[in-house]
Amino acid sequence: MTTLEDYLEKNADRIDKALHRYFGDVHGDLFRASAHLLLAGGKRLRPAVVILAADAVRKGSSDDLLPAALSLELTHNFTLIHDDIMDGDAARRGVPTVHTVWDEPTAILAGDVLYAKAFEFICFSDAADAAKIRAVKMLARTCTDICDGQSMDMAFEKRDDVTEVEYLEMVSKKTGVLYGASAAIGGILAGASPVQADALYQYGVNSGIAFQIQDDLIDLIASSETSGKDRASDIREGKQTLIAIRAREKGIDLAPYRRQLSGAEIDGLISRLQDAGVIDEVRAVAVERAAVAKQALSVLPDSEEKRLLADIADFFIDRGN
Amino acid sequence: MTTLEDYLEKNADRIDKALHRYFGDVHGDLFRASAHLLLAGGKRLRPAVVILAADAVRKGSSDDLLPAALSLELTHNFTLIHDDIMDGDAARRGVPTVHTVWDEPTAILAGDVLYAKAFEFICFSDAADAAKIRAVKMLARTCTDICDGQSMDMAFEKRDDVTEVEYLEMVSKKTGVLYGASAAIGGILAGASPVQADALYQYGVNSGIAFQIQDDLIDLIASSETSGKDRASDIREGKQTLIAIRAREKGIDLAPYRRQLSGAEIDGLISRLQDAGVIDEVRAVAVERAAVAKQALSVLPDSEEKRLLADIADFFIDRGN
Repeated sequence: MTTLEDYLEKNADRIDKALHRYFGDVHGDLFRASAHLLLAGGKRLRPAVVILAADAVRKGSSDDLLPAALSLELTHNFTLIHDDIMDGDAARRGVPTVHTVWDEPTAILAGDVLYAKAFEFICFSDAADAAKIRAVKMLARTCTDICDGQSMDMAFEKRDDVTEVEYLEMVSKKTGVLYGASAAIGGILAGASPVQADALYQYGVNSGIAFQIQDDLIDLIASSETSGKDRASDIREGKQTLIAIRAREKGIDLAPYRRQLSGAEIDGLISRLQDAGVIDEVRAVAVERAAVAKQALSVLPDSEEKRLLADIADFFIDRGN
Repeated sequence: MTTLEDYLEKNADRIDKALHRYFGDVHGDLFRASAHLLLAGGKRLRPAVVILAADAVRKGSSDDLLPAALSLELTHNFTLIHDDIMDGDAARRGVPTVHTVWDEPTAILAGDVLYAKAFEFICFSDAADAAKIRAVKMLARTCTDICDGQSMDMAFEKRDDVTEVEYLEMVSKKTGVLYGASAAIGGILAGASPVQADALYQYGVNSGIAFQIQDDLIDLIASSETSGKDRASDIREGKQTLIAIRAREKGIDLAPYRRQLSGAEIDGLISRLQDAGVIDEVRAVAVERAAVAKQALSVLPDSEEKRLLADIADFFIDRGN
C-alpha cells in the first residue's frame, strides 16, 4: 500500500522532470521569466489530484494525461505570478518573485504566457475530443472564478465587516475551484460520467476550502518554521479570515493587534481565542469541509487512488498540527 | 454587391449587440472593468475576418460561429488592457483605460477574465469537436506569440540598432498572428482543409503586417484628425519602425528629432525621407505584404466573402492615404 507521502514525492519528481523537459531550456527573457517560478519546486498537489482522479475513474494508469496535469500546475503558476504583482510580494517558494527579478510588464506577460500554455497543454492529452472540450470549458470558467476570488480578497482588505458567507465564497473561488477543476478535469478526460465529474469537482472545491482554513490556523498557531511565515501575520495585517470573523462574532476586537506583536502577545491572543471557542470552531469548519470532500468520493468505486484522494483531504487539515 | 464599408458596418453592429448581450449587464467591479473597453466600440475587424473566412470556406452563412468571432475580439481586448498597463497609456477608443478608471491590479484581473472567456467562447461555437480543439490550440499559440511580440516591442525601446528582420518578427507577432488566427480559426471551424487553414493564416498574418506598417506611415504623414494621434509621435519617441530602420540604412539620423517638433520641422523631415526614397520603399513593403495576403486566398473558391477578405487587405494599406 502506497503512503500519501511516497505517492506525492514520486509525483512531484515526475512533474518536475516534465516541467524541466518543456521549460528548462527556453530561449529569451520572457520565456525564462515564465519558467522561473515553475522550476522552483512545489508540492505539485494539483497535478497529483488530476492523475489520481483519472485513475480512480478508470482504475488504470493515466500517464497519457500528464499534459493535463501540467496544465493545472501552469494555471496555478500563472495566478501566482499575477497575484505576486498585485500583492507586491517579493519572494515565493524561496526564490524572488518574477516581477522582482525582471519587472512588472515582464511579469504580466510571463503569467499570460503560462495562461496560454495551460489551455494548449489540456489539448495535448490523449483523450476524446469531446472530453477535451469539456475540460477546456471547465478550465476557462475556473480561471474566471479565480480572478473573481482574488478581486474579492483584495476588496476585503479595505473592509472589517466581511461575513462568513462572503469569506467562504472568496476562499472557494481563490483556492477551492482550482482543486475542483483538477479533480474534475482528470475525471472528465478519463471518461467520467457527469455525476462522477460533479462529485470530483465537489471533492476538490471542499478540499481546497479546508486547505485554506487550515492555512489561516497555521498562520496563527504554528511556529514560523512550520508555516514559513511570520506567526500571526494575518492578524497583524487585519486580514478577514474565518478566525477574525468568528472572533468578531464573539465580541473579540482584533483591531488592537494590527501592529508588531511579541511572542507573548500572540500566545495571549491565542489563549483568548481558544477560551472563546474560536480556534475549535474554525478547526471544526475545516474538518467538516474535508468530510464533505471525502463523502463526495463515494460515487467512485473503491481503489487505492480513491483512498489517496481522501488522504489528500485529510492531509490538508492535518498540516501544521 | 456588398461594399466592404457596408459589410464592416453591419458586422460591427452585430458584434456590438452580441457583446452588449453578454457583457452589458454584468455584476461587480471586476466584470465591469472587463467589459469597459469591450463596450467602447471599435471596428471589430477580427470578428469580421473570422466570419468571412468561414463563409469563404463553405460558402454559407456562419452565424453559428458568432461565439468564435467574439472570442477573437475578446482576445484582442485582453491584450489591449494588459498593454495599456505596461505602456502606461491613459486613453484608448476615446475612453480612459481600465487601469486609469480602476487600478492596475483590477486591470490585470480584468484582462485575465477576458482571456478565459476567449477560450470559453471558442468552445461555444457550433462546430465539430476536433475542429474546436484545433482552434483552441491555435488561439493558445497565438496568445503566446502576442506576448512575445509585446515583449520584443518593449525591448526595442531601449535599442537603436533593431534590424528589419527583427522588426518584421515583432510586428508579425504583435499584430499579424491575431489576424492570422482570426482567419484560420474561422476556416477551421467551418471545415477548412489543412492547406486552406494554412493559407488563411498566411492571409491574416501578412494583412496584419501590412496594417502595422501602414499604421507607422499614418503616424508620420497623416493629419492628427485622420490618425487620432499627435503627428510623428513615433519619431519623437524614437520608436524602431520600418521608417526609422530604412532611414538609418540611408544615413538619415533621426536622433535629433526625439523632441517636441513643429509642423514645419515634421514637413521638412518628411521631405528628406521622401527624397531619400524611404517613404516609397516602406509603402512598397506594405503593398507587397497585402499582395502576399491576397495571393494566399487563391486556394479558396471565388466568392463574395473571398473578395471582401481581399478588400480588407487593400483597406489596411489604403487607410490614411
